[in-house]
Amino acid sequence: VSDRKARAIGGFPEFSPSIRATELHWIDTIRSVFESYGYCNIETPAVEELATLRAKGDDADREIYQLTRPGREESLDSRLGLHFDLTVPLARYVALHYNSILFPFKRYQIQRVWRGERPQEGRFREFTQCDIDVIGHESLANEFEVELLEAAIDALSHLGIGDVSFQLSNRKILEGFLRCLGTENAEGCVRVIDKISKIGIEGASRELHRNGLNPQQIDRCIRFATTTAEIDSFHKLTDALGYGSELIDSGMRELEETMRRLSPFAPSGVSISADFSIARGLNYYTGTIFEGRLTEYPEFPTICAGGRYENLLETFARRPLPGVGISIGLTRLFTKAIAVGWAVPLRPSPTELMLTIDDESNADRLRELARDFRRRGINAEVCFGSPILERQLRYADRRGIPYVWLYCSRTATHRVRDMNDSSEKAGDPTTWKPERKHSHRAASF
Amino acid sequence: VSDRKARAIGGFPEFSPSIRATELHWIDTIRSVFESYGYCNIETPAVEELATLRAKGDDADREIYQLTRPGREESLDSRLGLHFDLTVPLARYVALHYNSILFPFKRYQIQRVWRGERPQEGRFREFTQCDIDVIGHESLANEFEVELLEAAIDALSHLGIGDVSFQLSNRKILEGFLRCLGTENAEGCVRVIDKISKIGIEGASRELHRNGLNPQQIDRCIRFATTTAEIDSFHKLTDALGYGSELIDSGMRELEETMRRLSPFAPSGVSISADFSIARGLNYYTGTIFEGRLTEYPEFPTICAGGRYENLLETFARRPLPGVGISIGLTRLFTKAIAVGWAVPLRPSPTELMLTIDDESNADRLRELARDFRRRGINAEVCFGSPILERQLRYADRRGIPYVWLYCSRTATHRVRDMNDSSEKAGDPTTWKPERKHSHRAASF
Repeated sequence: VSDRKARAIGGFPEFSPSIRATELHWIDTIRSVFESYGYCNIETPAVEELATLRAKGDDADREIYQLTRPGREESLDSRLGLHFDLTVPLARYVALHYNSILFPFKRYQIQRVWRGERPQEGRFREFTQCDIDVIGHESLANEFEVELLEAAIDALSHLGIGDVSFQLSNRKILEGFLRCLGTENAEGCVRVIDKISKIGIEGASRELHRNGLNPQQIDRCIRFATTTAEIDSFHKLTDALGYGSELIDSGMRELEETMRRLSPFAPSGVSISADFSIARGLNYYTGTIFEGRLTEYPEFPTICAGGRYENLLETFARRPLPGVGISIGLTRLFTKAIAVGWAVPLRPSPTELMLTIDDESNADRLRELARDFRRRGINAEVCFGSPILERQLRYADRRGIPYVWLYCSRTATHRVRDMNDSSEKAGDPTTWKPERKHSHRAASF
Repeated sequence: VSDRKARAIGGFPEFSPSIRATELHWIDTIRSVFESYGYCNIETPAVEELATLRAKGDDADREIYQLTRPGREESLDSRLGLHFDLTVPLARYVALHYNSILFPFKRYQIQRVWRGERPQEGRFREFTQCDIDVIGHESLANEFEVELLEAAIDALSHLGIGDVSFQLSNRKILEGFLRCLGTENAEGCVRVIDKISKIGIEGASRELHRNGLNPQQIDRCIRFATTTAEIDSFHKLTDALGYGSELIDSGMRELEETMRRLSPFAPSGVSISADFSIARGLNYYTGTIFEGRLTEYPEFPTICAGGRYENLLETFARRPLPGVGISIGLTRLFTKAIAVGWAVPLRPSPTELMLTIDDESNADRLRELARDFRRRGINAEVCFGSPILERQLRYADRRGIPYVWLYCSRTATHRVRDMNDSSEKAGDPTTWKPERKHSHRAASF
């Protein structure tokens, strides 16, 4: 038996019961909203084959946690890794269950993912993502992009967080622009465009120069990457672009339509604008792309992101399936919400009614009483362990338990104490109900 | 881009949306029951330091999945492993948050665990466990054992599974018996006693002989390990034991009291008996120990197990904290319940009302209509993608969606179709509600 000190592991967050209760309420809320739009839930294993995880490119390798079995020879297990997102598992899931899946396949998935990143604010090694995707068979109406964004915005607006800014763009515009630009290093350009808000115009200019662009190209790139517009000033975008092409026009039409359809569904606190600097590193996006950020914290990483793709199953030998998806970074958003006070810890105990025990010989009687309360939908526990009333009341108080049942075995009388104002009155155990709704979780919306 | 076939990974189960919906309903049910007894929820990271995981002994090593980062030098990360149960993480959690935890600490935890076992019926490499424990500070009333067993039985009886047999024993009886027996190989004896139901009396006799026991000792061991009794025949146990000692008497008193107090709370379908063959391999149990099995499938592994321990934090430098806990093997039980029909797949879609679309130009109007239904608590989706009514009805039918909303843009009339009997009638979108409750999940109890 070793004698060690327990340590927290950096990047692997863990919450107190009070904060976990709040997180659970968030997850329940997101679940309810996603289901209200007709999305079903799936879960996939924590692991995928390394070949599946690596299909997206070598870049991803560095973040993958691989599984090994100490003291065992290399075996099948050594070819497994923890998933780093929920999109790769979705693609594998759809490929594996292709014949039984009903298309369009509307699914949400709330699971932990793992990335071997250096931990910093908003970046963890283990975190929960809430993904919602719809996968069409052969085709997928653009309407689904709007539905999905609406569902994500709806979910976010139920969480009581601060204002959120959604930036939308369309990969066709970016692609068309890059073609017109005539650079041989399109990939490098995208990387710079993607991070212009981080590195600024000067930094971006330098990097574009390093990527081989001439001054005119750099100028156009900067103009492109700093172009934003609300839906009511959308017509300005074409001028700002500096180029025109069929591909660009098609992307612009899609972007405008999505924004126009989405705008009426944005609640107050959610702004939606076009922003050409949105590029999304992942190369499978083909149409609408979007990111959501906390308006008050523009430096904070994106809290959700996604887009349209034409080929979810590119790594598997199936016909292409078009889809659109969005991922909410739950852990990132939740820890921020706790830190800034948008979310508050709930009571550390789900108990609504604590039954005191004045004599150990009454334990069975009180156990039965508690059981009857539970049957009537009241979370009830007996305070076993100490016959001293004061200590029992302290137990209830420290846990935020709103009501205490006082059964006196000598007189066989029942009283109930409201811990809010310490008032007491006679109670009938067969009919009593909490006066105030003191659910462990906030009331459902 | 590789061209591969998607494969299932043995031992890592994955369900269809219909079966996942049922599993989610099970988890919600267990959550509700545990919370109704005042247990709070926590989650711990999927990983612990290898030193923490290994503190239980070398035996466990073989099942641990260790994390590595391919292409990286050995670093801190290489000292992490996936947890193989939820007890070790609980001990580390309590040690780490010792100063902020309210004792007695009543917590439940529903999470996946990983073991590198060979997959077989009821044994997976990734599976979900539902653990419920109460940890006392310095002392813990025996009442909590009863409460915890009651909560576990209550949860199981809400799942609609077949009969469950609970076998109880007490480590003090086993320990006292082994001392009286006078063997030098107590550990070997426990291992044989633990598996006598699997290997039979003859097999057990052979193994005990191999462990160095003489014929008289073997005879007593077999008698001991085959001793069972219901609460009403409990007095017979003392005779069957063949030995008497203070330790044995103390264990017998505790066992009888726990059984006597628990019996009134066992619903029909749940039997509770004393069984001295229950040993539980883990060496930290010190008092009451118990196992639950499916009565109809005695060969099937235990569906839940647990017991009383005096020293949760033995691997950490803290004072001993006594506790009692039980773990329900959710994945094992759930897959069996699906296989034998105790649990049935739910509808693959959570949608209660599907809105048909007769003209693409109405998309925004219908989107708004769906939104109003959602606001009134009805899960509603618009059937985008095809304007053909027949295909839309087929969409609803295949997903088990109970109601379809038919909006005719030409006449601006609303009709609602009951998919159960294909009947249609006029509907008012501002007041309509489902006649039957068609929740995705079964109604809460």
